[in-house]
Amino acid sequence: METFSSKQQYHETLFKRSVLPEGFRAGAASLTFRPGEKSSADPYKMNISAIVPDKPTKAFGAVFTRNEFPGIPVILGRELAAREYCRGIVSNNRIANVCASGGREKALKVLGAFSEYNGGSAEDYFAASTGVIGWELPADDICAAVPDLAKSLQPDSIFPVAQAIMTTDNFAKVRSAQAGDSLITGTAKGAGMIEPDMATMFSFLLSDADISREQIRKILPAVVSETFNRISVDSDQSTSDMVICLVSGRKKTDIRLFEEKLFEVCSGLAEDIVRNGEGTAHVIRLAVSGAPDKELAVSAGKSIINSPLVKTAVFGNDPNVGRIVMAIGDWAGKNGIKLDTAKVIIQLGPETVFRNGVFHLDNNKEKQLSQYLRGRMLTAGPTGFPEHDQNVELKIELGSGSAEAAVIGSDLSYEYVRENAEYTS
Amino acid sequence: METFSSKQQYHETLFKRSVLPEGFRAGAASLTFRPGEKSSADPYKMNISAIVPDKPTKAFGAVFTRNEFPGIPVILGRELAAREYCRGIVSNNRIANVCASGGREKALKVLGAFSEYNGGSAEDYFAASTGVIGWELPADDICAAVPDLAKSLQPDSIFPVAQAIMTTDNFAKVRSAQAGDSLITGTAKGAGMIEPDMATMFSFLLSDADISREQIRKILPAVVSETFNRISVDSDQSTSDMVICLVSGRKKTDIRLFEEKLFEVCSGLAEDIVRNGEGTAHVIRLAVSGAPDKELAVSAGKSIINSPLVKTAVFGNDPNVGRIVMAIGDWAGKNGIKLDTAKVIIQLGPETVFRNGVFHLDNNKEKQLSQYLRGRMLTAGPTGFPEHDQNVELKIELGSGSAEAAVIGSDLSYEYVRENAEYTS
Repeated sequence: METFSSKQQYHETLFKRSVLPEGFRAGAASLTFRPGEKSSADPYKMNISAIVPDKPTKAFGAVFTRNEFPGIPVILGRELAAREYCRGIVSNNRIANVCASGGREKALKVLGAFSEYNGGSAEDYFAASTGVIGWELPADDICAAVPDLAKSLQPDSIFPVAQAIMTTDNFAKVRSAQAGDSLITGTAKGAGMIEPDMATMFSFLLSDADISREQIRKILPAVVSETFNRISVDSDQSTSDMVICLVSGRKKTDIRLFEEKLFEVCSGLAEDIVRNGEGTAHVIRLAVSGAPDKELAVSAGKSIINSPLVKTAVFGNDPNVGRIVMAIGDWAGKNGIKLDTAKVIIQLGPETVFRNGVFHLDNNKEKQLSQYLRGRMLTAGPTGFPEHDQNVELKIELGSGSAEAAVIGSDLSYEYVRENAEYTS
Repeated sequence: METFSSKQQYHETLFKRSVLPEGFRAGAASLTFRPGEKSSADPYKMNISAIVPDKPTKAFGAVFTRNEFPGIPVILGRELAAREYCRGIVSNNRIANVCASGGREKALKVLGAFSEYNGGSAEDYFAASTGVIGWELPADDICAAVPDLAKSLQPDSIFPVAQAIMTTDNFAKVRSAQAGDSLITGTAKGAGMIEPDMATMFSFLLSDADISREQIRKILPAVVSETFNRISVDSDQSTSDMVICLVSGRKKTDIRLFEEKLFEVCSGLAEDIVRNGEGTAHVIRLAVSGAPDKELAVSAGKSIINSPLVKTAVFGNDPNVGRIVMAIGDWAGKNGIKLDTAKVIIQLGPETVFRNGVFHLDNNKEKQLSQYLRGRMLTAGPTGFPEHDQNVELKIELGSGSAEAAVIGSDLSYEYVRENAEYTS
């Protein structure tokens, strides 16, 4: 990850990097509104944005949260996924449109207003809303800004959308990859679900590749399950998470290459989300091996990176192997896995710290590992962008099979508590 | 929970309250040691303690951690549970004796030294060790203090043991109840597993009731599963948790009354453990109803009280119902439960805040609920004992069945992070 000397240089670099694949336009606008109950308060700012294919496309797919309190955008998105054509994505930040009265009607009103400029009907568009749960969407205020949004659409860069969908994100997240002649460009938002009331992750993935609807719907869930579903900041799954992929079909591509490159884009965005968490002082990449099956490898990995005791130890640059051992044993006990502790191997950074059922640690090694953890702390540069992308590398061999999986998590810091305790909705 | 004006008054009160049932003696001693690798450092202090029945008893039972990296005391305890007689419990703090070389031999050496004073062999005693994972037990140093321990045994109070087993606990925990003529007295330790490297919960339960081995082994797991297994501070399960019950059989009792009173003692100790967590600023009691079955009621409750977003909101006195909705939906999604969100009811303190699929909140209600949360914050008195025992009361009706369960958890505070990040083993 490169370092930027100024916010302007960073914006210019990202605008250039954020090339839209052929056959798409994107844009953003902003507005202010006063939520009904808080009408005496200062008005709130909201961004709206849109991504549209030049022609309605059949080649699209989406993956949604499994949360059983889905927001209206998730409900509408599931309905759209069954339709023949998609005409685009209309997004807003600030309000998530979850469990608020009249949410469906308000979302459709906004999409309908946009369809007057871009064709089709409200039901042809994905709504993507992120922000406070429970508040009502200010549909009239948004509709008044839709003409600006329509005017803003341009075919060059996805960057305006990447910026508009941010809530408490520190930096806009865009990743691209070339798959033969075709281009894949994706954006994402989400401060790893650490943000107060705005526990939403979006990713919009666009390509001009010649990939069919059926291919997208096979590839996308597989890629998402190995990338976005392998990260965890605080184990909480939002009511509004969604990943949408739209394809314009302009360029021939090899399907395997496309899948590989889509994986690359999604991996990068997933890491950006973890790295972006305001409370994140370390990103932890954990490679689990020797699990009975893949699902258990993932569940072991997530249990360990979600353990508050492991997370706080990493935050404190404490190579606390006892807590890792505790977390492995806890996971195994809860899942009915019989561990042969003599076969478990734990490696932290460059050192093997547990083998043959006992710790391999001494004062000197502990000092070196503490130094290693310090070296991997993230510090934000002047742009909010972290100054390096080094992770804390943890490897755990469970000695119980041959399946493996990698997961990515963050530590648990004062900043996490501050972010989530001091904000009052 | 009463308030104490001074540490002395608190100690005197607790000593008197901590009456040992007939047929038991208890005592404690202390020692210093230097862990091998850290020999240049200042010596560490360790407490040892013992509880013995006057005669070896067949009437005993124990429940252990399910963690698959059990400490040596857990392994030895499981072996003792299969033997005919138990002669007592010998405990130490500071070192948990988990995954350290020669752990079994060292534990048996200590128990053997104690058996020279109290009869039988090493295998007749429970070892209970709490403290750092991975360090070696200083068996010779402990053995040198065993004569002091043997001399300290007295038949009056369990309080010296309650104090000796503390690690980062703020206050000694003892609860008693009369079951007809018989007495049940229990002690516990554990700062809710928040303590650095000392992730251990013990409870020793003693009674002079005329209860058989078979009865204990039926009642104890049932009571533990409804009390100690219903609390969660940070969702991490230690390598060393154990609950031991010894009965001397001197007094006739009614078995149902005994079970009821054992439940009362264990409930009180379980609440004390949560309330004691150094990072705990609020205790949350969550009553879940309308679950498909009991197990799911418990799992829903634990998911919600373990959600970092819910925990930080409570810490910040923020009545953030959106996060509770998110946590319910997340739990349901992960467990394949289809929720009818229109049937879900959420009550926080005195207010219904969610019903018929939408939030019931306004500015005024939010202010009142924030005040309610502030009123239930815990502040430690001069003795370290919290000054009240009021909980944050949360009720959730899932509308998916008729099973219910109550769980107890804590919030997530800066102090939790400090405790667990700044300590370096």
